[in-house]
Amino acid sequence: MTTRTETDYLGSLQIPADALYGIHSVRAKDNFPDTTQFHVEWYQAMGLVKQACYLTYAEMVKALQEENLYHYSKGFIPPNVVNALIAVAGEVHEGKYFDSFIVPAIQGGAGTSINMNVNEIIANATLIRLGHNPGNYTVIDPIEQANVYQSTNDTVPTALRVAVVRLLTLLEELINNTRQAVETIEKSHRNSLRIGYTQLQAAVPSSYGQLFSTYSEALSRDWWRVSKCFERIKVVNLGGGAIGTAVGTPRFFVMEVVKHLQQLTGFPFTRSENLNDATANLDSFVEVHAILKAHAVNIEKMASDIRLLASDIAGNAISIPKRQVGSSIMPGKVNPVIPEFVVSIAHRVYTNDMLISNLAGQGALDLNAYLPTIGHAMIDSIKLLIAANQALASHLLNGIEIDSEKSAQLLMFNPSITTALLPIIGFNRAAMLAQEMRLKKIDIFSANQNLKLIPEEKLVELVKPNNLLKLGFSFREVID
Amino acid sequence: MTTRTETDYLGSLQIPADALYGIHSVRAKDNFPDTTQFHVEWYQAMGLVKQACYLTYAEMVKALQEENLYHYSKGFIPPNVVNALIAVAGEVHEGKYFDSFIVPAIQGGAGTSINMNVNEIIANATLIRLGHNPGNYTVIDPIEQANVYQSTNDTVPTALRVAVVRLLTLLEELINNTRQAVETIEKSHRNSLRIGYTQLQAAVPSSYGQLFSTYSEALSRDWWRVSKCFERIKVVNLGGGAIGTAVGTPRFFVMEVVKHLQQLTGFPFTRSENLNDATANLDSFVEVHAILKAHAVNIEKMASDIRLLASDIAGNAISIPKRQVGSSIMPGKVNPVIPEFVVSIAHRVYTNDMLISNLAGQGALDLNAYLPTIGHAMIDSIKLLIAANQALASHLLNGIEIDSEKSAQLLMFNPSITTALLPIIGFNRAAMLAQEMRLKKIDIFSANQNLKLIPEEKLVELVKPNNLLKLGFSFREVID
Amino acid sequence: MTTRTETDYLGSLQIPADALYGIHSVRAKDNFPDTTQFHVEWYQAMGLVKQACYLTYAEMVKALQEENLYHYSKGFIPPNVVNALIAVAGEVHEGKYFDSFIVPAIQGGAGTSINMNVNEIIANATLIRLGHNPGNYTVIDPIEQANVYQSTNDTVPTALRVAVVRLLTLLEELINNTRQAVETIEKSHRNSLRIGYTQLQAAVPSSYGQLFSTYSEALSRDWWRVSKCFERIKVVNLGGGAIGTAVGTPRFFVMEVVKHLQQLTGFPFTRSENLNDATANLDSFVEVHAILKAHAVNIEKMASDIRLLASDIAGNAISIPKRQVGSSIMPGKVNPVIPEFVVSIAHRVYTNDMLISNLAGQGALDLNAYLPTIGHAMIDSIKLLIAANQALASHLLNGIEIDSEKSAQLLMFNPSITTALLPIIGFNRAAMLAQEMRLKKIDIFSANQNLKLIPEEKLVELVKPNNLLKLGFSFREVID
Amino acid sequence: MTTRTETDYLGSLQIPADALYGIHSVRAKDNFPDTTQFHVEWYQAMGLVKQACYLTYAEMVKALQEENLYHYSKGFIPPNVVNALIAVAGEVHEGKYFDSFIVPAIQGGAGTSINMNVNEIIANATLIRLGHNPGNYTVIDPIEQANVYQSTNDTVPTALRVAVVRLLTLLEELINNTRQAVETIEKSHRNSLRIGYTQLQAAVPSSYGQLFSTYSEALSRDWWRVSKCFERIKVVNLGGGAIGTAVGTPRFFVMEVVKHLQQLTGFPFTRSENLNDATANLDSFVEVHAILKAHAVNIEKMASDIRLLASDIAGNAISIPKRQVGSSIMPGKVNPVIPEFVVSIAHRVYTNDMLISNLAGQGALDLNAYLPTIGHAMIDSIKLLIAANQALASHLLNGIEIDSEKSAQLLMFNPSITTALLPIIGFNRAAMLAQEMRLKKIDIFSANQNLKLIPEEKLVELVKPNNLLKLGFSFREVID
Repeated sequence: MTTRTETDYLGSLQIPADALYGIHSVRAKDNFPDTTQFHVEWYQAMGLVKQACYLTYAEMVKALQEENLYHYSKGFIPPNVVNALIAVAGEVHEGKYFDSFIVPAIQGGAGTSINMNVNEIIANATLIRLGHNPGNYTVIDPIEQANVYQSTNDTVPTALRVAVVRLLTLLEELINNTRQAVETIEKSHRNSLRIGYTQLQAAVPSSYGQLFSTYSEALSRDWWRVSKCFERIKVVNLGGGAIGTAVGTPRFFVMEVVKHLQQLTGFPFTRSENLNDATANLDSFVEVHAILKAHAVNIEKMASDIRLLASDIAGNAISIPKRQVGSSIMPGKVNPVIPEFVVSIAHRVYTNDMLISNLAGQGALDLNAYLPTIGHAMIDSIKLLIAANQALASHLLNGIEIDSEKSAQLLMFNPSITTALLPIIGFNRAAMLAQEMRLKKIDIFSANQNLKLIPEEKLVELVKPNNLLKLGFSFREVID
Repeated sequence: MTTRTETDYLGSLQIPADALYGIHSVRAKDNFPDTTQFHVEWYQAMGLVKQACYLTYAEMVKALQEENLYHYSKGFIPPNVVNALIAVAGEVHEGKYFDSFIVPAIQGGAGTSINMNVNEIIANATLIRLGHNPGNYTVIDPIEQANVYQSTNDTVPTALRVAVVRLLTLLEELINNTRQAVETIEKSHRNSLRIGYTQLQAAVPSSYGQLFSTYSEALSRDWWRVSKCFERIKVVNLGGGAIGTAVGTPRFFVMEVVKHLQQLTGFPFTRSENLNDATANLDSFVEVHAILKAHAVNIEKMASDIRLLASDIAGNAISIPKRQVGSSIMPGKVNPVIPEFVVSIAHRVYTNDMLISNLAGQGALDLNAYLPTIGHAMIDSIKLLIAANQALASHLLNGIEIDSEKSAQLLMFNPSITTALLPIIGFNRAAMLAQEMRLKKIDIFSANQNLKLIPEEKLVELVKPNNLLKLGFSFREVID
Repeated sequence: MTTRTETDYLGSLQIPADALYGIHSVRAKDNFPDTTQFHVEWYQAMGLVKQACYLTYAEMVKALQEENLYHYSKGFIPPNVVNALIAVAGEVHEGKYFDSFIVPAIQGGAGTSINMNVNEIIANATLIRLGHNPGNYTVIDPIEQANVYQSTNDTVPTALRVAVVRLLTLLEELINNTRQAVETIEKSHRNSLRIGYTQLQAAVPSSYGQLFSTYSEALSRDWWRVSKCFERIKVVNLGGGAIGTAVGTPRFFVMEVVKHLQQLTGFPFTRSENLNDATANLDSFVEVHAILKAHAVNIEKMASDIRLLASDIAGNAISIPKRQVGSSIMPGKVNPVIPEFVVSIAHRVYTNDMLISNLAGQGALDLNAYLPTIGHAMIDSIKLLIAANQALASHLLNGIEIDSEKSAQLLMFNPSITTALLPIIGFNRAAMLAQEMRLKKIDIFSANQNLKLIPEEKLVELVKPNNLLKLGFSFREVID
Repeated sequence: MTTRTETDYLGSLQIPADALYGIHSVRAKDNFPDTTQFHVEWYQAMGLVKQACYLTYAEMVKALQEENLYHYSKGFIPPNVVNALIAVAGEVHEGKYFDSFIVPAIQGGAGTSINMNVNEIIANATLIRLGHNPGNYTVIDPIEQANVYQSTNDTVPTALRVAVVRLLTLLEELINNTRQAVETIEKSHRNSLRIGYTQLQAAVPSSYGQLFSTYSEALSRDWWRVSKCFERIKVVNLGGGAIGTAVGTPRFFVMEVVKHLQQLTGFPFTRSENLNDATANLDSFVEVHAILKAHAVNIEKMASDIRLLASDIAGNAISIPKRQVGSSIMPGKVNPVIPEFVVSIAHRVYTNDMLISNLAGQGALDLNAYLPTIGHAMIDSIKLLIAANQALASHLLNGIEIDSEKSAQLLMFNPSITTALLPIIGFNRAAMLAQEMRLKKIDIFSANQNLKLIPEEKLVELVKPNNLLKLGFSFREVID
C-alpha cells in the first residue's frame, strides 16, 4: 500500500495514499476503539451545513468585492476552489464517501473528530475534483479551507439539528399513518361490544371502538407533539464559533449563514439570539427526546394490549396478521413479533432518554463535551420510532381482525354487563340478574327469562350498543 | 381501646371506635407494608375534587326537583347530609384529618385505597359533624354517600392533576425568581471578562455576563416550559367512572362536575372529549414530567458550573455564600452544599422520570394500575424542584461574588486571548504574541511591549470588553 | 417560646431553649427545603457508630493511663461524660430523640448535616442527663466531645453500612419465606398439568410445579445473592477521618474502633485496608444494590405471571386471595393489588439503582458528596423489597389456589399437547391428532377415538404427568 | 437477478438464487425495519453452539447403532451431511457468511429470527459444500436438519452466554492492564504530596500515591468482579427445547450436548439443573451486567478526576498525553478526549443496565421474549468497557505526568496542611500558623519563621511525606 505522510502538531502519520480521510481521523479511530456505527443521517447533514458555509463564504467575498474591501483578502480562497467545495459538500450531503468516515459513534470530544473527518473528506475529494492528489493540503487544507469560518462547536450540533428535523418529518408522517390505521379499526368497530377491563379484571361494558379510540387519541397527541418538536429544534448556533462569541468569524458570515441553511433545507432554521446559550446548553434535545418518549409510552401500551388480546392465554380475543413462522416444533405457531418489536423499541427509547438527560446535565461551562453520544442516542431513537411505526401500520394494525359477535356474546355472559343497567333498572334487579348469571353461567337474557324482571324486548333494547355505550344515564330513562 | 366492627364482603374487622378511617383503609395498610409518606398535596386535592362532586350533586338534585323528576330519588342523599359532606370535603382540602390517612404512597390498585381512605374519613367526619358516631354507615356510608357518582378511576387522577397544577404554579414563580437572580448577576457582570472554557480547557475570551446569560436563557425556556405544562395537565376525566364510559353516573353530573372543579380551583380544567382515553392513557404525565426534566438538567448544569468555579481546585474564580460549617477538622472550610443539593435533586428527578415512563407504559387495556406510584413520583419531582429553586435563589445566587479584576487579569495572561485578535491583527502577530506570553508567562501587554507588534493604545482598545465581546469581526476593523 | 443563642463561625441563631438540635441542624434545615423523611434506620445506626467511638475513646484513655501517657490529655473528656455519651448514643441507637432529627433526606454535603444533627442531639441529651441545660456547650460540645476523633466522612457511611446490614438480614429471611411459600405450591402441584406458554402463545405441555419451580430457583439465587452482599458491605472506613488518612485521629483509635463496632453489632465488620479508597469510592453500594435489583426483577416477573394467570382476561387459570374490595360499582370485584404492589416496588428499585450508580459516578477526588442521596435510595430499596416479600408470602402466595383438573383438561383440548408425543408416535400421527383437535374443538382422546391412531390405554398412559413431564425422550419409548 | 422460490406455511417468496439466507430471514428483515448492526460475536457463538449440537448428534447416532436402536432412525441425517454441518458451523464460528446475516439487532421474538437466519446460512452453505444448490431444502432443510434437536429458546441464549464469556475473558485481562498502569503511577508517586479535596474544597494533606491507590483498589475489585461473573454466566439451558422440558429432544442429546460445548470452548459451561428456570428467567444477565456497572462507575470516577486535575481550570495539576488536535482556532489546544470517551461509555453502560433489567422483568410465564434486545445491550456494554480499558491504559494512564515538586509546594502554601500537624503541635499553634499563611499568602515555613512556634528542623521533619501520610497519630509524637 502506498502511503502519504500527514503531519499535525503532535507528529506525523502514514496515511494510505488515496484515502479521503487524514491524520485527524486516523488518530480519532485509534483513540476511540468503539465499533458502534455512526449514523449516516448526521454525516449527510454535515455535508449540508458545510455547503451552507461555503455558499455564505462565496456571497461574502462577492460583497467584499463590491464594497472594495477585497484587498484584505489576499488569503481568500479562490472562487474555483470555493465552487468545488460547494459541490463536494453536496456529495457528502447525498451520502457519498461515507466509507471514508472512519470515526465511531462513541468518542471523546464535543464532535471534533466528526468535524475533522468530514473536513478531511471534503478537502481530499475537492483536491481530486480539481486534479490534485489527496493530501496536497497546501492547495486545500482540511482546516484552513474546508473548515473556513467554522467550528466543531457550531457545525456539528447544527448538523445534528438538520438530521433530527428530517427524521422528525418522516416520523410525523408515519405516526399519522399509524393513527389512521387505528382509526379505521375504531370506526369499523364502534359498536363491537366487549368487556372493559381494569387491572385485567372484568369491569364494565365497553366496545372495541372505544378501546381503539384511546389509541387514536394518544397518537393524535403524539402527532401534535412531533409538530411541536420542530419549534424546539429549529434554533441553531451556526456562526457562533467555539463558544458562541463568533470569535474569528466575520460578522457578515454570522449574519448570513443561517439564511443559506434555510434555503438548502427548506426549513425555517433560525439563528439563536444568544449563541453562547445555544452552544453551552443542550436542554432542547432533552425536551425533544422526552416528548418523543411520550410517544414511545403510547405505542408500548397499545402494542402490549394487542399482544395480550391476540394471545392464546387471553383466548384470542382479536387476531393479528401472521408475519413469520414462530416455532420449529409447534407447526402453525405464530408469535406476536410486531408488538414485541415495538415494546423493545420503546424501552430503547426510554434508556436513550436517560442517557441524553444524564449527559446533557454533564455539560461544563461553555460547552457540553458529550454531544456525539447525545446526538447518536437522539437519532437512534427517532429511527427506531420510525421503524416501530412502519411495522405497526403495515405489519400489525392493517390486518387486525375482531370477531365482534363472539366478543358481544362474552359480554352478555359476563355479570359485569349489569353495571351498565344498574341506574336504569335499579340496584336490586341488577344484583339479582348478576347473581343468576354467575351461578348458572348463563347470559343476561336467560337470567332475565328465569327471573322475569324486565320485559324481554326492553332488555334487548337496553343492551344494544347505542344504549350500553351512552355517556352516563338520564333519570328520564329509569325503568320503575 | 374500644372498637367498632366494620364489615365488607371479605369479612369483618375491629376498628378503633373513634377512628375516622375504616375497614378499607385498614386492609390497605395491612396489604401494603410500605413506609413512604403519601404526599399531603394529593390528599388535599382529593378533598377538593370530592367537594366539586358534592356541589354538583346538590345542583343536580335541585334541577331534578325543578323538572319534577325528584320522585325517582327516594334514595337521594338528604340536603343536610350533602351540605355536611361539602363542608367536610372542604376540611380535607385544608389538610385536616391527614393523620387519619393511613395508606402509604406505594400501593397496589389504581388508587382504590387512596379513594377509600378519603371516603372513610369524609363519611366519619360527616357523621360526627351531624352528631352521629363514626362507623354508623347506615346513616352515611363511605361508598354509597361519600363516593356518590364517583369512581377511584376518575377522582384520584383528577385530584393528582389538581395537586400538580398547584405545585406547578408555585414552581413557575420560583423558576422566575431564580431567573431574575441570575439576570442580576448577568447584568452586573456584562463586561467582567473571563476565559471561556471548552472541555475544561481555556478556549477563547468571554465574560461572566455571557456565562450567566446562558443560565438565564435556559431558565427562561424552563419558565415557558412550565407554562406549557398547564395545557397538558388541565384535561380531566372526572365523571368518567371506572373506564370513562360514565357507567352508573347521571349525564347531568358528567356534564356539570368539571364546572365546579373550575370554580373551586380558579383554573380552567376541562373535561376530556374522550373519557376512555383520559382514563386509560397517562402520557400527559410522561410529557409534563419529561419537560420538567429539561429544567432539572439546566439547574444541574448551572449548579455544577458554580460549584466548580467556586471551588478551591479551580482557584475560587467566584465566591458563593457560606451557608453552613463544612468541617470539624478544618476550621473555616465551607462546602458547596447548595449546588450539591441541586445536583442531588436533579438526579432524583431523572430517576422519577424513568419511573413514570416505565410504569406509564405498563398500563393495560382500560386502565393503568400504577397511577399511585406515578403520581407520587410526579409530585415528588415538582416539590424537589421547588426546593431546588428556593435554595438556588435564596441561598446561592443572591450572594455570589465575582472578582472581575482578577478574572480579567487572568485572561490577559492567558494566550487564548489572542484568538479574539487574530482576525484583526492577523495570524502571524497573534501567534507571536501567544508564544511570547506562554514562554515568559507574561500578559499580552508585556508581550506586545517586548515584540512591539501593535501600538500600545490600540492594543488597550482592542482588549476592552466591548471589543472583545463583539459578535464576530468586521473586515473594516482589520489592522494592517 | 424561650430560646437560647448558638453561634458558629458564620454567626448566631436563636434556638428553642429546650431543643436537642442546634445551630448546625437549623442551618441545614433552612438550606435544604426538602420534605423527604430521613430513614430512621440510618439515624439509629449513627447512634451505634457513635457508641463504638465513645467506647473506643474510653478504652484508649485507660490504655494511656496504663502507659503513663495520660499527662498529654489535659483536654481529655472526663470519664463521667464519656459514660453519659455512651448511654445517650445507645438511646439514639434505640430510636430515641428521632423527632429532634430535623434534617431532610435530600441534602447537600456528604452527610455533614446528618452527623451534626446527631452530634447536637447527643451533646444536648448528654447535657440533660448530667443535669445541665441544653446548649451549654462549654461543658459538652457537639463537635469537641460528641464528634471526638470522628468525621462525617467516616461515621456517616459506616452507619449506612450498619443500617444496610441489618435490613439485609431481615430481607434475607423474608426472601427465604417467599421461597418456601413458592416451594409449597411447587410441591403440591408438581403434576398439575398446564399449557406452557412462550410469548403468551400455547407452546408445549408443562405443569404448575415446573412453573413455580422457576420462581423458587430464582428466589434461591436471590437468597444466595443477599448472603453475598454482606461481604461487599462489611468493609468500613471508620477511623479514617476526612479522607481516609486518619488525620487528627490517634492510631490507637483507628486500630480499635472497628472491634467495638463488631461487638455492638455482632457482625464481622472489618476496617478497610485502604481507608482512602473506602472513603472515596462507593462502588460497593452500586454492586450491592445492583444485586438486589436482580431480586426485584425476579419478583416482578413472578408477580406479573400470577396477576396474568389469575386475571379474568386469562380465564382465572389460578385464583389468588381476595385482599380488599376492588370496586364500588362492580360488587365482588377483587383486584390483583399484591402483584401490582410488587411491580411498583420493583420499578422503584430499578430507578433507585439508576440513581445510585449515576451519583456514585459523580464522586470527585477524595470524596463523594452524594452519599446522603445514595444512602437514602439504598435503604429505600431494601425496605421496599422487605415490604414486597412480606406481602408476597403472607398476602398472595399462601392463598393461591389452582384448579388442576380444569388446567389439565385445557391441556387435553389444546393441540400443543401433541408436541410432547411427537417423538413417540411420530410426526404424522401427531399432526393428524392436532389437526382433528383443532378442527372439531375436541380433546386428544376424542380425536384419537375418531382417528384410531393409538391404542386408547396407551394414549392415557402417554399423557400422564410423569410421562408428559419427563426431560426429553428415549428412543426406546418410540411407538411404531 | 435470478431467484429461487421458498415457501413456509404463510406463503412463498422469491429469494436471490445464490443467497445463503432464506425465507425466514427475509420475512424478519421486512418485519423489523431496524438498522442496528447485530453483534458479530453473538453470530459466531451461534456457530459454535450449533457445532456442539451436530457433534452430539453424531455421537448419539453412533451410540444408537451400538445399542442396535438405529432402526428407529430411518429419518436420521446421513453421516456425510452431519460432517458437513459440523464443518460449516465451524465456519460460522469463525465469522464467515456474516454478510448473509440480514436480521437487525432489534427484533420481535425471543431470537427466532437469529436462529433461523443462522439455520438458513448453515443449510445453504452445507448444500453448496456438498455440491447442491442453495435452497435445495429437500436435501438439507434449515429446520429439519440445521436445527435438529434445537430450539431458538435454548441455542440463542446459550450462544449469548458463550459470546459473553469470551468478551469477559478479554475484559478481565484489560481491567488488569488498567490496574497495572494505575499501580505504576501509584508506586512512583507514593510520596508526591498533594492537597486532598473533599467536595472540591481543600481539606487535608494527601499524596498522588494515595489518590491513585483508590483507583487501583477499585480496579482490583472490578477485576475480581469480572471473575465472579463467569460463575453466573456458565449455566446454560442447551438441550432444554422450547421451555426447558426438552420436548422432542432425545434424552441422550440433552445429557451430552453441554459436554461438547465445554470441549469446544474450553470453558466449564454446565447444564442447568432446572432447564425451565434457565429458560424463563434472565436474572443472571441482570446480575452480571449490574456487576459490570460497578466497573463503569469506577472508571467514570477515575476519568473525571483525571480530566479535572489535568484541566486548565484546575491549573493543570497533572498532565495527560496529547492524543489529537483539539481546536482549529486555538493552536495547541488539546482536549481530554480519552476521559470523555470513558465517561460516555460509562453512561452507555448505565443505560444498557436499565434496559436489561426493565426487559428482564417483562418476561412472561415460560419465556422472556426480549432476549435479543437484552443480549445486544449486554454485548454492547462489554465491548464498550473493553474499548474504555484499552483507551485508558494505552492512551491515558501510560503517559500521565505529575509535577510532584509543584504539587508539594502548593500544599506547603495551603493552610489545610496544618490539619495534619494539629494533634502533634496542638490546636493553638496550628491555628496560628494557618492564619498567618492565609493572611500573608506565605508557606508554612515562612509562617513559622515569622511566628517562631516550632524549631525549623522539626517542622521540616514533620511535613515530610512519611510523617504527613502516616495513618493517624500517636500520643508519643506530641510536641509540647
